[in-house]
Amino acid sequence: MSETLLVVKIGGNVIDNPEACSRFLTDFAKLPAPKILVHGGGKVATQIAAKLQIETQMVDGRRITDKSMLDVVTMVYGGLVNKNLVAELQAAACNAIGLTGADGGIIRSVKRPVKTIDYGFVGDIEEVNNEQINALLNSKLVPVIAPLTYSSEGLLLNTNADTMASATAVAMAKQYEVSLIYCFEKKGVLSDPEDDDAVIASLIPKTYSDYKDSGVINKGMIPKLDNAFAALNDGVKKVTICHADDLIQAASGVAGTQITQG
Amino acid sequence: MSETLLVVKIGGNVIDNPEACSRFLTDFAKLPAPKILVHGGGKVATQIAAKLQIETQMVDGRRITDKSMLDVVTMVYGGLVNKNLVAELQAAACNAIGLTGADGGIIRSVKRPVKTIDYGFVGDIEEVNNEQINALLNSKLVPVIAPLTYSSEGLLLNTNADTMASATAVAMAKQYEVSLIYCFEKKGVLSDPEDDDAVIASLIPKTYSDYKDSGVINKGMIPKLDNAFAALNDGVKKVTICHADDLIQAASGVAGTQITQG
Repeated sequence: MSETLLVVKIGGNVIDNPEACSRFLTDFAKLPAPKILVHGGGKVATQIAAKLQIETQMVDGRRITDKSMLDVVTMVYGGLVNKNLVAELQAAACNAIGLTGADGGIIRSVKRPVKTIDYGFVGDIEEVNNEQINALLNSKLVPVIAPLTYSSEGLLLNTNADTMASATAVAMAKQYEVSLIYCFEKKGVLSDPEDDDAVIASLIPKTYSDYKDSGVINKGMIPKLDNAFAALNDGVKKVTICHADDLIQAASGVAGTQITQG
Repeated sequence: MSETLLVVKIGGNVIDNPEACSRFLTDFAKLPAPKILVHGGGKVATQIAAKLQIETQMVDGRRITDKSMLDVVTMVYGGLVNKNLVAELQAAACNAIGLTGADGGIIRSVKRPVKTIDYGFVGDIEEVNNEQINALLNSKLVPVIAPLTYSSEGLLLNTNADTMASATAVAMAKQYEVSLIYCFEKKGVLSDPEDDDAVIASLIPKTYSDYKDSGVINKGMIPKLDNAFAALNDGVKKVTICHADDLIQAASGVAGTQITQG
């Protein structure tokens, strides 16, 4: 049996909250290696852009990334956020190495083609270099990946962190038994959106289909879960959706929503 | 005989000039691996700080780094500058990986003690992890190092790029025959400051001492050259001081000032 690899994704809401972020990093540092952290951006990019008098344009919840905004996200995601996470993990005896997709050429993308909307410098992932990532893991390093990729022309490109996490998990499934953990602000997938404790402990394709048919799972969770099942179809062993505070328990299978092929 | 390793330092003046920087990167990409690039910061940090209404304070040519300025240099050096260098090198088929001292714990420092001046979040290097850097080189990666280190408490610290380059070169001399190349805006050490072509082709301790005694070499060059000879004393095989445009010729020993023990 292959070795287990944890790929953990942490969202911007935790990045934005220093206490929650420190708790999360302390827990992440305790998880067994090999492991990978993929992080979102948070609100700092928008705040810095505002101070630099760069207007933030959003369409359908996605940031439009012109050249000025690309510079801001490169600074904030690749520099400020990523390097502070790395320094804090190093202090917690976790041998973190901060990376964008450009570093070591680990995640290459193409600039999103313009259809109805020009998203600007946004990347759609083309290839994850699992061998290069594996070489880092074999050097006892813990990759901490910022939501930026690069194109073969040498452009940096703003890229969705959820997608980077699942693409990385799928690529690494060639060599590892991969467990992909999405940490967010809820305790898991809820059977009642009004009750934060109504966590659905496990989902398999059949029960997911039933929950969708009955309307228990709807709206915002559907793309997230569709992506989770797509990752399982592509070789990932398990996907977990949990609260950032429950990382260790979720990694042990006793918190959050555990999603498998059944 | 050990393998040769090139450690190249490029200053902020080249970083600030996109055309000069592209020329330099094209040349750097052509140099034989293993190799390491250490880069300075450039003026962008000062410009961004000004836009963010953070005042830049300099004492004796050194930036005072308060918390706001630390965030700016982390963004600019560790993010904007470093990641753009990496993406451009990747496009030139050079497998660059951007790092601060915190990444992989490669360069650890201590926050400079306050004597007469409080420099703020500035690091004095304590340890270069040559084994971790060597593991990256063995994975066919080309480290591109930003002028930031970290402390064991998890602080990021602004650090002089020249010092980082020489400390890295010295640490790597345990395993490699190291050639350290400082690229700057002159063609080398000049025997006449008014004549840019009056390059002193080679220096050994005796000739350096003679040039100092006669006043040919003075002022600003002395600390640079003292550092070069200190690196040679600590195991570095050769130090070269050259113009950024002459990197390839300087690496072959036919441009710049070649400094050796003689």
